[in-house]
Amino acid sequence: MAKKVIVPLAQGFEEIEAMSIIDILKRAEIDVTVAGLDGLEITGGYAKLTVKTDTLLENIVADDFDMIVLPGGMPGSEFLAKSDLVKSLLNDFAKNNKFIGAICAAPWALNEAGVLKGDYTCYPSCEAMIKEDGYKSDKDVLINENVMTSRGPATAMSFALEIVKQLAGEDKYQEIKSGLLA
Amino acid sequence: MAKKVIVPLAQGFEEIEAMSIIDILKRAEIDVTVAGLDGLEITGGYAKLTVKTDTLLENIVADDFDMIVLPGGMPGSEFLAKSDLVKSLLNDFAKNNKFIGAICAAPWALNEAGVLKGDYTCYPSCEAMIKEDGYKSDKDVLINENVMTSRGPATAMSFALEIVKQLAGEDKYQEIKSGLLA
Repeated sequence: MAKKVIVPLAQGFEEIEAMSIIDILKRAEIDVTVAGLDGLEITGGYAKLTVKTDTLLENIVADDFDMIVLPGGMPGSEFLAKSDLVKSLLNDFAKNNKFIGAICAAPWALNEAGVLKGDYTCYPSCEAMIKEDGYKSDKDVLINENVMTSRGPATAMSFALEIVKQLAGEDKYQEIKSGLLA
Repeated sequence: MAKKVIVPLAQGFEEIEAMSIIDILKRAEIDVTVAGLDGLEITGGYAKLTVKTDTLLENIVADDFDMIVLPGGMPGSEFLAKSDLVKSLLNDFAKNNKFIGAICAAPWALNEAGVLKGDYTCYPSCEAMIKEDGYKSDKDVLINENVMTSRGPATAMSFALEIVKQLAGEDKYQEIKSGLLA
């Protein structure tokens, strides 16, 4: 059965990161639900385009999903980091030992929720507001038990492909990677 | 003065390509207008999210812009290739020797419009329906006079950065490349 992933979008998200994650997971036939933090229509922070989401994040129940992935960007990551709803969801995923992913500035939300333990990576300089302890700058994608983190727009494709590998296996990973010309 | 670029979106466009182009050009303070081919709301073919565009393509006058860039994906590229409006716009850009860009399957539209002369690249296998003559598989981004072409999702960031280099110069290119961690 296809794995199910929830991707929350907050105003000011990074579009390359969000689209790479959603596009690549769907190419791998992973069932992705895109949920708006404060409305059904969310505007990114860089391409500044408004995207229609599938549902509101407040409608999401963690039990229905296998993984949660947070795109980065500012101020999107700050909205995620300061949301009690996001904190609560992240703890539901962590408690059941399900995968949690975050890229760029979004590992901030993981740390605010208390689910960022041990080594991680993020957008260079963001470690100052996340946590210096455990920050690694030498990996594009870092998997630490159930937590997957990545650095920024240029690593978003590798991050999404690594999620495909974890949720859909090596064959699907190779197939999708090849289709992207990656 | 900031350069102005028009990016047409057709139903079934490739989201990583479109967002990389729009996001990266806007990071470089290039003035990007996103125009829907058959409506103001356009749904991509892979992430399958609906995006709100700035205007309809029929409202666009080539004289107001410095470049036109076509994202790929299917069936988006086919809609672009079969559109008389797109053909007419492409010819307006070509006639004034302005930059024309296309990635993935979208160089098809350039060939249909008669503006794809000499060497080019595209998504591997698409050359069969575009033109075998001049197809090069060994470059991620190929610039041939005023025509810039590229291969697919994994080359979209390099393609967008090359557009930044051409329109905004080497310093801006280096600055944006570094910010993306590319």
